[in-house]
Amino acid sequence: MMVSKGEATRNRILDQALELASVVGLDGLSIGELAKATGMSKSGLFAHFDSKEDLQLQVLHLARDRFVAVVFTPSVREPRGEPRIRALFENWLAWELGRIPGGCPFVAVSHELDDQPGPTREALVEVQHQWINTLAAAVGIAVDEGQFKADVDAHQLAYDIYAIFLAFHLYHRLLRDDQAIVRARASFENLIRAVRI
Amino acid sequence: MMVSKGEATRNRILDQALELASVVGLDGLSIGELAKATGMSKSGLFAHFDSKEDLQLQVLHLARDRFVAVVFTPSVREPRGEPRIRALFENWLAWELGRIPGGCPFVAVSHELDDQPGPTREALVEVQHQWINTLAAAVGIAVDEGQFKADVDAHQLAYDIYAIFLAFHLYHRLLRDDQAIVRARASFENLIRAVRI
Repeated sequence: MMVSKGEATRNRILDQALELASVVGLDGLSIGELAKATGMSKSGLFAHFDSKEDLQLQVLHLARDRFVAVVFTPSVREPRGEPRIRALFENWLAWELGRIPGGCPFVAVSHELDDQPGPTREALVEVQHQWINTLAAAVGIAVDEGQFKADVDAHQLAYDIYAIFLAFHLYHRLLRDDQAIVRARASFENLIRAVRI
Repeated sequence: MMVSKGEATRNRILDQALELASVVGLDGLSIGELAKATGMSKSGLFAHFDSKEDLQLQVLHLARDRFVAVVFTPSVREPRGEPRIRALFENWLAWELGRIPGGCPFVAVSHELDDQPGPTREALVEVQHQWINTLAAAVGIAVDEGQFKADVDAHQLAYDIYAIFLAFHLYHRLLRDDQAIVRARASFENLIRAVRI
């Protein structure tokens, strides 16, 4: 696919903006800071982004595309049911530990945005709902395939899996606990064992 | 207990600083914003706080004192073991839904501070460790009392309980999911059922 020079520049800027946002948050993502990080002028940056809000939205879209590529797409190649849920979970952990320096940017910005109404918050909430629905759908398939008990509440299990991930983020990033991933996997195994037929 | 006028003023400022920090974060807690919120002059505020860092640390200490009063102290009046763990969990949910507008301030600031080394981050990590150790100790008592299975890993269960709380914070505050507390309690019941003798 051909990418114009302007588009390539924009993608390069967004890449650095995402890294910055994962550490300082979306609100800390000022055009001034981004100018420093990219070595571009502020006016050069404004040629690519109409406003700070536009920049924030584009960063969230990039994060979503990356998340789909790293977590979702490789997982749906796995067999339906439990193997796919395992892949979603493991790829999600890998995403937290991956190349974005502040860890999962959705978690990093969720507390920042939870009290700030507006399009950026709405975009984040939409991404979160898509992901929760993806997890719940994967659980539903495991039930349909006869792998999980028939009375499993798919959205409850999605909540539980999300919970494990959030604690992993806290233990790993804030507490620097070297048992974080061991704990996350142990919780996940307990959860799956309880619903498996 | 006698409280001097200076101390009373300082407490009133800290109260508002904590409310502000729970919404805008500790980094957003500038002396300028606090001056607006309290109606005091910047120089008046600097008479109480040596620096922004000093203000952040005092806000964290206030939050910890409040947490102890709202969550910890009433729980340790409950009988040892499972009833006390239930009280710790329920009071923690109440803390999230309580008078601090941005919900649990420790969660609200944890993502902000996870990449920022310094005394504020260290103070937050210490509070988190104290709380995790409190949860684990309560679980250990339930094991000692013969209520929970002997092979229960107290720190693993503390991780699991913390996980449920973090998902509750996300579902309640960011997603505005009216099932958040129902999900949190269901997860907690599943967790306790699995370890109970």
